[in-house]
Amino acid sequence: MLPTARVDYIAPWWTYWLHNFPHVNLRFQPVNKSFNPQDDNYQQSLIFLVCVAAAGLGLNLLFLAIYLSCLCCCRKEEEEETKRPNSCCVTWTAVTAGLICCAAVGVGFYGNSETNDGVYQLTYSLYNANHTLGGVDSLVSGTMDSMQRGLKQHLERLDEIFATRGDYIQTLRFMQQMADNVIVQLTGLPEWGQTRVDLAATAVQISYVEYYRWLSYLLLLILDLVICLVACLGLAKQSRWLLTTMMVFGVLTLILSWASLGADTATAVGTSDFCVAPDKFIMNMTHNEISTDIVHYYLYCSQSMPNPFQQALTIFQRSLTTMQIQIQGLLQFSVPIFPTAEKDLLGIQRLLNSSESSLHQLTALLDCRGLHKDYLDALIGVCYDGVEGLLYLSLFSLLAALAFCAMLCAIPRAWRHFASRDREYDDIDEEDPFNPQARRIAAHNPTRGQMHSFC
Amino acid sequence: MLPTARVDYIAPWWTYWLHNFPHVNLRFQPVNKSFNPQDDNYQQSLIFLVCVAAAGLGLNLLFLAIYLSCLCCCRKEEEEETKRPNSCCVTWTAVTAGLICCAAVGVGFYGNSETNDGVYQLTYSLYNANHTLGGVDSLVSGTMDSMQRGLKQHLERLDEIFATRGDYIQTLRFMQQMADNVIVQLTGLPEWGQTRVDLAATAVQISYVEYYRWLSYLLLLILDLVICLVACLGLAKQSRWLLTTMMVFGVLTLILSWASLGADTATAVGTSDFCVAPDKFIMNMTHNEISTDIVHYYLYCSQSMPNPFQQALTIFQRSLTTMQIQIQGLLQFSVPIFPTAEKDLLGIQRLLNSSESSLHQLTALLDCRGLHKDYLDALIGVCYDGVEGLLYLSLFSLLAALAFCAMLCAIPRAWRHFASRDREYDDIDEEDPFNPQARRIAAHNPTRGQMHSFC
Repeated sequence: MLPTARVDYIAPWWTYWLHNFPHVNLRFQPVNKSFNPQDDNYQQSLIFLVCVAAAGLGLNLLFLAIYLSCLCCCRKEEEEETKRPNSCCVTWTAVTAGLICCAAVGVGFYGNSETNDGVYQLTYSLYNANHTLGGVDSLVSGTMDSMQRGLKQHLERLDEIFATRGDYIQTLRFMQQMADNVIVQLTGLPEWGQTRVDLAATAVQISYVEYYRWLSYLLLLILDLVICLVACLGLAKQSRWLLTTMMVFGVLTLILSWASLGADTATAVGTSDFCVAPDKFIMNMTHNEISTDIVHYYLYCSQSMPNPFQQALTIFQRSLTTMQIQIQGLLQFSVPIFPTAEKDLLGIQRLLNSSESSLHQLTALLDCRGLHKDYLDALIGVCYDGVEGLLYLSLFSLLAALAFCAMLCAIPRAWRHFASRDREYDDIDEEDPFNPQARRIAAHNPTRGQMHSFC
Repeated sequence: MLPTARVDYIAPWWTYWLHNFPHVNLRFQPVNKSFNPQDDNYQQSLIFLVCVAAAGLGLNLLFLAIYLSCLCCCRKEEEEETKRPNSCCVTWTAVTAGLICCAAVGVGFYGNSETNDGVYQLTYSLYNANHTLGGVDSLVSGTMDSMQRGLKQHLERLDEIFATRGDYIQTLRFMQQMADNVIVQLTGLPEWGQTRVDLAATAVQISYVEYYRWLSYLLLLILDLVICLVACLGLAKQSRWLLTTMMVFGVLTLILSWASLGADTATAVGTSDFCVAPDKFIMNMTHNEISTDIVHYYLYCSQSMPNPFQQALTIFQRSLTTMQIQIQGLLQFSVPIFPTAEKDLLGIQRLLNSSESSLHQLTALLDCRGLHKDYLDALIGVCYDGVEGLLYLSLFSLLAALAFCAMLCAIPRAWRHFASRDREYDDIDEEDPFNPQARRIAAHNPTRGQMHSFC
């Protein structure tokens, strides 16, 4: 069966999952979960999530500090034991950390690009909606202008020409009345000026923020990758200054990873709160500016809903039709008597035809389908791609924190290992896989060689 | 200044670049570059590009064969020389090949996801267009049905009620005439049935092909990554059977990479030929099915273009207005005399009101904006994301071919190196960075140690 085009929005499951995260303010009181960025308590509930990540960073640094002090204090005792399993463990920890880091960077690149796509879709839809509303405004003002000024000039000239014929003058009065009717209906249509300014300003602001967010993540990802590669190089080359530098950068990246985890989680939870019930938030936001009927019409756009502009459009069409019939009558009966009137009558006919074309365009622009599709596209951009990307970015932050934590644990051990190797250089390492003597021993003693491979 | 929504399509520069690729048929004659998938010569020009990639693969395999035979033949002579620079070169070649492979896989993942996004956008737009045309068809058939059957029933009953009043019967005849007018106009609108079937079939087919394309690339990318990692592991562990297996898989992947390069390039060039002049191709494709005016109206959708449906819609609206005026008259004057007529007259009024609402929806659906936007979105999806993704996939194929070529050169050398190390196991390698003795010597001789680091 043919899958139909998406005509309705269903919030994805991950937004419900994120929406169910605890919303607690900074005094640990539960807070209403509806999206309400103006509310102080709601803001605090998002800040709380950032604080949780900060606490995670604190614990992580504490663990590292304890681990490193233990490593320094217990140096003596351990040195007496065999150092072999350690060296092997260090290698595997470093390799695992390197692989996790690469995986994290991969996930991060994907997430960053997904979020960017989602936000781009949002701004594109905002610009599109702005364009549609701009089209409505320009059609309305254009038609009003032609009805007020264009028609007036023609009618004034015809008034002079037909001055002697009362019945024609009456027809002209009737046409003026119809034109006034049209103007009244057009004036009754909502003014989109303020909404357009808001939409455009929101789109510009979102694009601006998104550009810097995207760039920061790109730099963070490249930094992570470079640190990871350089640390591996440092381990392979056993270069101490490289490892020291990477330790410092590793701590910095650990802090950045936790910070990004906090920011991503808070943003994802906030966006999900919006995505779970977007219509409600938009209704609340617009209830002072635009009539509820109109907002409902565009938000739901169901076939059964009455078009709030139908009456105005119908009256507009009927007035135009009436005027066209009158003009046809005048062209037929008055032109033989007053040939000079023909030019103005044809001018009015042209003006009515172009107004009719504007009316058709206006009907198309005011119809809910266009704006509703922009709204759905924007929602799908933000709630599908956007939030999904943020989740991937959170996963990246977690994996990166894990990788750098493992690396910060492995490097000092590797260091100790180099130190002990340097001191004991005469003692050729029999289980070092890169040592030819060790290979020979392993070849002659397959069980040990095998064990070594999987340590 | 506020950037406006994209209202026109400009082919991206890379499509011009690809369009300028030589188009030559299999008899080496130049061929017309316009997109024309039915034309035998045009098809051959794309197959030619695949053949070029096949030739590239042949040369690559030839080079590898010569290289490997040289390596086997010249074994004796070289063994007399020092083997140091070789071992170092092998390591660095392997590391470089691994890095290029990782970069290729990264580029490939991005390209695969971009192409998928582009094709998704295309199918989404096709479904949307199909949905719009389906809406038009259902509105037309619904309105025709209510005008033919619904109105007929009411008019037949009213005929009986008003049987004694000639003037009312005449009004009813007039209304029937207006309804016939509407039906004639609606019948004159194009039948979208066949176009919809074509659109839906195209969308289903594209989705199907794209799913398998995407999946195949995903598997190829994962295969590349796994071979690359396992080959590195094999080098590090000096495991011969791993390296042998990876040699075989390496050759397989090399063949797949060249094949994918050929397929990607041909698809990208074909798509670019379409993207450079899409309107022309669509005009040619539809000229037997849909009138040129209508296709022009939807393809360009400029303000200055006349709406080819305006006359039909205007007559529809005028007929409705006339009928509504007649019904209002009958309600006002006949109901006091014939109270039983009220129900049917109100029924007709409801029917006219719902037809008016359908007319407004029809005006909106037939307006070019909706379908033109779908067309632009589809073009942007294919020509921006789609072709860009194909270019990234081509880059991936090239990089992967390079990486596997380097790897296939490095592995046999590494193998020889292991072999010579095994034979000369008593000769401890003084420049092996993983050998503690070597480190000690290097520490006492900083210049040599330094040199080694950057070999």
